[in-house]
Amino acid sequence: MTAVGTLVLLRHGESTWNAENLFTGWVDVPLSEKGEAEAQRGGELLREADVLPDVLHTSLLRRAITTANISLDAADRHWIPVRRDWRLNERHYGALQGKNKKQTLETYGEEQFMLWRRSYDTPPPEIEPGDEYSQDSDPRYADLGTDIPRTECLKDVVVRLLPYWESVIVPDLRAGRTVLVAAHGNSLRALVKHLDGISDEDISGLNIPTGIPLRYDLDDDLVPTVRGGTYLDPEAAEAAVASVAKQGR
Amino acid sequence: MTAVGTLVLLRHGESTWNAENLFTGWVDVPLSEKGEAEAQRGGELLREADVLPDVLHTSLLRRAITTANISLDAADRHWIPVRRDWRLNERHYGALQGKNKKQTLETYGEEQFMLWRRSYDTPPPEIEPGDEYSQDSDPRYADLGTDIPRTECLKDVVVRLLPYWESVIVPDLRAGRTVLVAAHGNSLRALVKHLDGISDEDISGLNIPTGIPLRYDLDDDLVPTVRGGTYLDPEAAEAAVASVAKQGR
Repeated sequence: MTAVGTLVLLRHGESTWNAENLFTGWVDVPLSEKGEAEAQRGGELLREADVLPDVLHTSLLRRAITTANISLDAADRHWIPVRRDWRLNERHYGALQGKNKKQTLETYGEEQFMLWRRSYDTPPPEIEPGDEYSQDSDPRYADLGTDIPRTECLKDVVVRLLPYWESVIVPDLRAGRTVLVAAHGNSLRALVKHLDGISDEDISGLNIPTGIPLRYDLDDDLVPTVRGGTYLDPEAAEAAVASVAKQGR
Repeated sequence: MTAVGTLVLLRHGESTWNAENLFTGWVDVPLSEKGEAEAQRGGELLREADVLPDVLHTSLLRRAITTANISLDAADRHWIPVRRDWRLNERHYGALQGKNKKQTLETYGEEQFMLWRRSYDTPPPEIEPGDEYSQDSDPRYADLGTDIPRTECLKDVVVRLLPYWESVIVPDLRAGRTVLVAAHGNSLRALVKHLDGISDEDISGLNIPTGIPLRYDLDDDLVPTVRGGTYLDPEAAEAAVASVAKQGR
């Protein structure tokens, strides 16, 4: 039996809307220049650590796709097979998509704001059909039909992510491959929650920094040999986590 | 039965070695800034013509991969499925890889030079094992083992390309998809030779310009409804073909 391969998680670099402090969700904004530089650095970390992906999984959103493209080019692994799926998308932020985080905090107050941002099972209000930031007529989700999310809490992300993990990512790992998953703050939190067996309460305290590859080695039962995995640049990760926690303030 | 989908061919934009007038072949050089701009324009042409790819096929070389990435992002189709294969690679240029075209012309003379560049079945001399421009230890070709080419003529490219065309690209077309093939001067010439039924003699006169999508609509027998296809910017294509014909002088 082939040993289980290595899993590498990579959260996309800063997007233009991160820079403007807007809720993004499924809105398909590009990376900022800083985000492109983060992606480049992420690829250099992969190369320096000799953690060379054999296959890429991304969401359908360009901030994750571009991050992967830049990182893999920097690591000289631009030629590996690619799999994309909406199940790796960022959490759908419902009616908050396109809204300013600071204004939302001021309008709704700290308690409601933190409930939407960090509670496990309270989604924001649904986005209206035809809202300029809805994905109703987006061809990439045409196959979803009326199952397209109108809002999601983290629990919803776990529910829609796990079938993809089990049926597509795990077989790549079981084949002994080094698997890069380039995705988003909340889809990666959902995956890490599953991998590390984090409780519904404790997951609210977990932040994943952007652009720093997070390596998981897994045993035959897909349990991480090191809980929480290992960042390829641990010092930068620690500094970034502290900064992310202040977002929206 | 679903109608056969649309085929779109896209030759990568200028690479740094095109700009330096070097034989490239399988050497994995990046796009020049001009090449990136060509790729951007190619994507804008796709969007303006509403020719929206459902699936991408690329070679394993970054000048084709980056061209596709930039073009698809410009056409808002960055999220489509991707298939990559060495069979779409540029012709392997053997011992000429890394050599200056003008110097090669001066050293070997016009007749030999044109034979290597344009004859259908005369490959350049084989590249030596261990040559700095060979791909002997390149992990992306590890599965090929000793079948990795050491040189190729256009006929060799036709022979290794057609199994991929038949077994991977055609099924995508039969499924009714719009298929983008982002590849190289000679792998695309090999494909066009097959599609349009061009003779071994006449193919030497065919040049495909960089960065301008070439659309083929195919009937149920996969015969082009318009021989030679249709460039999305016919005037630019005509001007570019005239310029390509002068390369190496």
